[in-house]
Amino acid sequence: MSLLTIGSVAYDSIKTPFGSADKALGGSASYFSLSASYFSRPSIVAVVGEDFKPEDEKILAEKNIDLTGLQKTAGKTFAWGGQYSFDMNSRTTLFTELGVFENFKPELTEDHKKSEYIFLGNIHPSLQLEVLSQITSPKLVGLDTMNFWIEKALDDLKKVLAQIDILIINDSEARELSKEHNLIKAAKIILGMMKTGFGRGVPSATEGTPPPTLIIKRGEYGLLMFNGESIFNLPGYPLEDVADPTGAGDSFAGGFMGYLAKTDDISQASLKQACVAGSVMASFCVENLTTVRLQNLRDEDIQKRMENFKHLTHFELN
Amino acid sequence: MSLLTIGSVAYDSIKTPFGSADKALGGSASYFSLSASYFSRPSIVAVVGEDFKPEDEKILAEKNIDLTGLQKTAGKTFAWGGQYSFDMNSRTTLFTELGVFENFKPELTEDHKKSEYIFLGNIHPSLQLEVLSQITSPKLVGLDTMNFWIEKALDDLKKVLAQIDILIINDSEARELSKEHNLIKAAKIILGMMKTGFGRGVPSATEGTPPPTLIIKRGEYGLLMFNGESIFNLPGYPLEDVADPTGAGDSFAGGFMGYLAKTDDISQASLKQACVAGSVMASFCVENLTTVRLQNLRDEDIQKRMENFKHLTHFELN
Repeated sequence: MSLLTIGSVAYDSIKTPFGSADKALGGSASYFSLSASYFSRPSIVAVVGEDFKPEDEKILAEKNIDLTGLQKTAGKTFAWGGQYSFDMNSRTTLFTELGVFENFKPELTEDHKKSEYIFLGNIHPSLQLEVLSQITSPKLVGLDTMNFWIEKALDDLKKVLAQIDILIINDSEARELSKEHNLIKAAKIILGMMKTGFGRGVPSATEGTPPPTLIIKRGEYGLLMFNGESIFNLPGYPLEDVADPTGAGDSFAGGFMGYLAKTDDISQASLKQACVAGSVMASFCVENLTTVRLQNLRDEDIQKRMENFKHLTHFELN
Repeated sequence: MSLLTIGSVAYDSIKTPFGSADKALGGSASYFSLSASYFSRPSIVAVVGEDFKPEDEKILAEKNIDLTGLQKTAGKTFAWGGQYSFDMNSRTTLFTELGVFENFKPELTEDHKKSEYIFLGNIHPSLQLEVLSQITSPKLVGLDTMNFWIEKALDDLKKVLAQIDILIINDSEARELSKEHNLIKAAKIILGMMKTGFGRGVPSATEGTPPPTLIIKRGEYGLLMFNGESIFNLPGYPLEDVADPTGAGDSFAGGFMGYLAKTDDISQASLKQACVAGSVMASFCVENLTTVRLQNLRDEDIQKRMENFKHLTHFELN
């Protein structure tokens, strides 16, 4: 099934205690689409400047990512610089240069308007709304956002939330959005803001409509997925070394949405599998700097980690 | 099978943002044995003072806990006071009065020396060694410790570690003991300090000897269990309200060891089930102040939460 994402294609400059990268391909749409490309063919809607290098476009094109929605305009590509602390749990933004992203007005092609699986990356909620309004018959819409928009554009954000099916945010964002510390209570409040509200029930394999689902990411601790009365926990994949956490969340979203678009199955069983697929992609992402690890994965390596998640979490009761 | 624990029976004074308790039955051996009593018959080795009230003894006796090892001596029962922050994640110790616990010299009865399942609660490692030396043929020995002993009595602690099968500590203790931040690396280092060392393999159902196993507790995020090359993750049970986190770790240990003593099965499958049993008991413990919730549970409520853990964690891959 068709999968469309809107987000940033950027140049990231990253410093970690163990290595650094200068002006490397980054941005939410890059991580998302590289990750999703292992499951289906994602289309990017994004903008880059005149400085965007052919070799970086090639990285995306070689993974069969549809770049017809990648606008090129006068100016510089969105650039971000960040530095990680020794334990990789906190990072400082060194600079943010919006460049051509500042005046980005997403215009979808006729083909892209017909997309069925949509992921609205972390941009201004009014832009997310604008994109969504151009989609003619979405089957499932996922959304990312951040504290900045919760604080600065809550009204617009609530309008988007009322139109989407799957929200993927982290625990601090969930707490801020719901004004509730306990994540189970927070989830109920947030699901109440979404398309069909809380308590509509868990999607079944036979049900055709998308479930209102909230996924709360908890960094190294993994995630909680809430829908209906169900809670599903998936831990983080155990890694001895993390080289660069940048893009882990976008890689999760890419694996998650890519898996759903591939299977075209939005049952509860499939949503859980999509969580596993997303977590596996995030675990690969952080093993090397920037998008390097996402560029050359083998399907059997992905499958192996998905199986490993079973060993990590499953038990039998007598 | 026989199950013996050594630890504290204490009077706890607890303040939380939502309620408080004054001189209520507490201490590691109380929480451990109340929790374990739902699976097998635990024996306590501990000391109390002249102020220990018959009604508190009755709470333990009514759960069929063996109190023949509960010494009563001149002086006051160990007393502890603590206060929790609003989000229940941090607590301040208001006072610690060791009382009769200060000169506690555990002497086991002939019956207790023959115990098969042993849990050495969080006391000075030299006392843990002294108890262990009296046990004639232990089948499985579990141990708790804390940062204080890692800092103040590391040599003695290492001597105990070399003689035990299962270590149950939290993440900050694991990091301090191993001097390693990454928990997977930390686990390898710690397993190397234990009885049979790292890499002896995962216990199988047919194997009769106890596995060297490390359980790292991560508060609301649950636990990681390490042995051989295996890692098992169990999340915390999702609760909307936590009344009092006191004793959660001891309740986990009680449920874990109680389950193993009941089944007398130390296979990997059984260890995982014991983790689930322990986590269920911890989840009940924190739902009310002090030991109140542990005093009156129904077996079917325990069974139900064990089943719920499956819904929370299991998925099927295509």
